[in-house]
Amino acid sequence: MRIALDAMGGDHAPGPIVAGAVHAVAESPNLHVTLVGDRAQIESALGAAAAAAHDRIDIFHCTQHVTMEETPVEALRKKPDNSISRTWQLMAERKVDAIVSAGNTGAMVAGGLRLRRYLKGVRRPGIATVMPTLKGPCVLIDVGANVSPKPSHLYAYGVMGSIFAKHILQVDRPTIGLMNVGSEEAKGNELAKDTFALFSGGPLRDRFVGNIEGRDIFRGACDVVVTEGFLGNVILKVSEGLFDFVMKMVTAELHKVLESEKHKAHQAIKDLVHSHDYSAYGGAPLLGIDGICIICHGSSGERAIKNALGVAARYAQSGLNEKIVEELARIPAVVDED
Amino acid sequence: MRIALDAMGGDHAPGPIVAGAVHAVAESPNLHVTLVGDRAQIESALGAAAAAAHDRIDIFHCTQHVTMEETPVEALRKKPDNSISRTWQLMAERKVDAIVSAGNTGAMVAGGLRLRRYLKGVRRPGIATVMPTLKGPCVLIDVGANVSPKPSHLYAYGVMGSIFAKHILQVDRPTIGLMNVGSEEAKGNELAKDTFALFSGGPLRDRFVGNIEGRDIFRGACDVVVTEGFLGNVILKVSEGLFDFVMKMVTAELHKVLESEKHKAHQAIKDLVHSHDYSAYGGAPLLGIDGICIICHGSSGERAIKNALGVAARYAQSGLNEKIVEELARIPAVVDED
Repeated sequence: MRIALDAMGGDHAPGPIVAGAVHAVAESPNLHVTLVGDRAQIESALGAAAAAAHDRIDIFHCTQHVTMEETPVEALRKKPDNSISRTWQLMAERKVDAIVSAGNTGAMVAGGLRLRRYLKGVRRPGIATVMPTLKGPCVLIDVGANVSPKPSHLYAYGVMGSIFAKHILQVDRPTIGLMNVGSEEAKGNELAKDTFALFSGGPLRDRFVGNIEGRDIFRGACDVVVTEGFLGNVILKVSEGLFDFVMKMVTAELHKVLESEKHKAHQAIKDLVHSHDYSAYGGAPLLGIDGICIICHGSSGERAIKNALGVAARYAQSGLNEKIVEELARIPAVVDED
Repeated sequence: MRIALDAMGGDHAPGPIVAGAVHAVAESPNLHVTLVGDRAQIESALGAAAAAAHDRIDIFHCTQHVTMEETPVEALRKKPDNSISRTWQLMAERKVDAIVSAGNTGAMVAGGLRLRRYLKGVRRPGIATVMPTLKGPCVLIDVGANVSPKPSHLYAYGVMGSIFAKHILQVDRPTIGLMNVGSEEAKGNELAKDTFALFSGGPLRDRFVGNIEGRDIFRGACDVVVTEGFLGNVILKVSEGLFDFVMKMVTAELHKVLESEKHKAHQAIKDLVHSHDYSAYGGAPLLGIDGICIICHGSSGERAIKNALGVAARYAQSGLNEKIVEELARIPAVVDED
């Protein structure tokens, strides 16, 4: 298993990115990681670990990188030797099975769109993420790859999300819900109404639970929540922010009222935060591209990167893409003007 | 202070709606409530309380009501004698100072749009709601009145939200943020970019903090979060759902690890849930209409309705609308094709 890792992407790159790679190869004897970025900086970050991991970590040198603040498409054009484009290039040339980056999400997506190496039947890739619910994890797709989707794109997200839920989350017959502002068929904007019609009139109708509202996600109302990227991105970040806020509030409150068991309670809250932290999930896959691409949180540390590399390896081995192609071939194509 | 209350609106109406009104008039000697709906059902719900509250509660009988599932505009047309339209009518005729409903939100908004009695300078009303943050409450506007807004509508929401923050939340110079998928100016869809330009180029530029992301809300990044209604509605409901989910998870976890102080911890969590429950906030105002309109959660119980009546009275007394008109007159009009 060979994975290219954007060593320059992320708020704290390359330090924790490189450390995550070292950690991952130490744990997985079959993993080979190519660190993409500035050789001098990467070697400095590798430090003493370089010798130990030498045979399963190599460096693909490039001179530029896209910052978190840059406009994606413009940055990729202005900086041809940037680490994101080089990472994509390694996958396009089949030199690696998967790619991972904690860099500028928009640039990472734009890098994929530029190559246009999509799976057969896919017109726009989408980012899937796993959300916790009272009934176990569910898939939220798209969380930011496509801010102007057509109904057919959302339909394909439903298909891809279902295959992800089935083969990665082990859900037998995943149900699909459409994010909306109310459960009734006539709710929402034109995109929501047209997408509702596609799902309820097509071969996925038996697994389509209809519109769901924001609060239904966490009740576990369905296994796959389909949404456009702008909304999905906001849902993801609102959830992160609120989770953090509530945990701080709970901690402060327990600190006030508890005495002898204060420490025990704090430890329990800490453990909950740790297990629900984004770094535990190991990044979100960009589904629909020919290859495996995992996009990590900008603030990813060593643990998040290590987990993301593990997830990338698992997805590559699971044959997820082959199953997406099969399933998309089985259902009648849905076409709308692009 | 006279308030018309839609007695038929809400998942459990009219029981808890009527009970909330009885409770509210008992607490506020200057409050008069007109219960709008089916006289027989209301009288039955009033029961023994009818005598006690007799002089400050009356009934405006009507024969129809809009259910939670109905399509708003269609329902209002098909049922001319419905309680929502009658409630609006009482305000239009200046028979009451404010109206309150826990019924079908879309129908409540549509009832207001039909009358078109907006404040001078307002082209589309928006629903404002109060969200908790680490730095105190902030205003989120719009959470569902306008799913296809123009940039100028969002701009006016910023103005109205600021006045709400200043006069209701007592924030001296409220800052405004635009909900987006990243903090950079060029982020997001066309609506976000055009609205960013309006705020950063206009007289509110000093108070505009720029784009904010979902997670920034709870950090208290700004006092007023401006968003289009579809997104705002999802943010509100995701927040409700996640809050509920996290509190359940925390309760279960503390139950497992604590012993002697289990009860104390549970009580603290219960209190937190109680104080952050939507029913504590007492409903969300539809800002921009000529009058005070408070829209409550569909599942509102007695406490939520009682608080909503209190909030409606406070808004009417605060001269909020007069201040909105003044402020909108002071800033140059922003016009885009409607």
